[in-house]
Amino acid sequence: MIKIICSQSTKLACLLALLTASVLNTTYAEDLPSPAKFNTDNELILPLNYREWVQVGSNVSPNELNNGKAPFNEMRTIYMDRGAFQHWKKTGKFRKGTLLLKEVMSAERYKGLTGSGYAAGDVVAVAGMLKDSEKFANEPGNWGFFRYPKLDNSELFQKTSKQFPTGKCSGCHVSGAQDDMVFTQHYPVLTDSKGTGRVAVPVE
Amino acid sequence: MIKIICSQSTKLACLLALLTASVLNTTYAEDLPSPAKFNTDNELILPLNYREWVQVGSNVSPNELNNGKAPFNEMRTIYMDRGAFQHWKKTGKFRKGTLLLKEVMSAERYKGLTGSGYAAGDVVAVAGMLKDSEKFANEPGNWGFFRYPKLDNSELFQKTSKQFPTGKCSGCHVSGAQDDMVFTQHYPVLTDSKGTGRVAVPVE
Repeated sequence: MIKIICSQSTKLACLLALLTASVLNTTYAEDLPSPAKFNTDNELILPLNYREWVQVGSNVSPNELNNGKAPFNEMRTIYMDRGAFQHWKKTGKFRKGTLLLKEVMSAERYKGLTGSGYAAGDVVAVAGMLKDSEKFANEPGNWGFFRYPKLDNSELFQKTSKQFPTGKCSGCHVSGAQDDMVFTQHYPVLTDSKGTGRVAVPVE
Repeated sequence: MIKIICSQSTKLACLLALLTASVLNTTYAEDLPSPAKFNTDNELILPLNYREWVQVGSNVSPNELNNGKAPFNEMRTIYMDRGAFQHWKKTGKFRKGTLLLKEVMSAERYKGLTGSGYAAGDVVAVAGMLKDSEKFANEPGNWGFFRYPKLDNSELFQKTSKQFPTGKCSGCHVSGAQDDMVFTQHYPVLTDSKGTGRVAVPVE
């Protein structure tokens, strides 16, 4: 909140300022900059507020559904930076600087009052894809991939990441993902809002 | 909160300060009000921006894991209003006006490049719990429960909801949920941030 105390003589200027402030000061300012920041070694720094970004989807692919040996025995939740999401809602495109982070968790089998299921387990790694037509001019879709694993014998995670080699991640994204290398087929939050701005179920 | 006092002589500086303040005063204002609004029939109106709130967790409890008949054969994602989440980060408590919304989806079985799994299917209903010590003075934990199902023969959802009868939802929440009737045991986003403000994996 911004509190402004106006004196009589500055009333008009003050009102104008307030108006400007109130327009700019929206929750989901479209012009929120990309959170992507690199260190001097050209490593992408993990933003430490991504759980407050927009969750675009979660899914789980456990061993039990894959003959005991899933290619990725995990649960995952994908977050998109808020500025990029505002752009997506308006244009249906991933803007330059779009950062998607995937929290990779163990698929924890639980038994509760409402039956058995899978819920979030321990985090194994955070993985990211960043779109930048200059920085990744030669990469498929101009996406660069990054990964922040849990450190050995530690509770802590790697906090910066070099770009992963081309092909390490992008292969599956090129061949399987529905929209600009993002698996939007699993993310109604994205498909519903694409160019429409709808961020809830539809009502009359 | 940012407090700015303008006088005649400092008009320009003031405008600049206001502009700066409006940029700095980002998305996560601690004093964001509760989104809970009631109509004249005392029905809670479904907020139409909840997919931009904080996702606190997702889980799935499909028939296949429950002898073919799960009590709730569904996938769900739970969202918490942003103001309440700021309060939670600071105090570890659910403030008056905290609104949690659960999007209830079919558990869609998919087969992708990375194996088989469950992802978000069609939305069946949105369900909510609202904490209010005055409005729900006699309810367990002062939580009131609400539900917005998909309408029959329609793509649309109910947009307002009367309070559900006590016991219809609260029974399981009283006996099974870990923290003030919320199933925080499945939501690392909440347990990690409780009173600490941590909204990412820990790094050094």
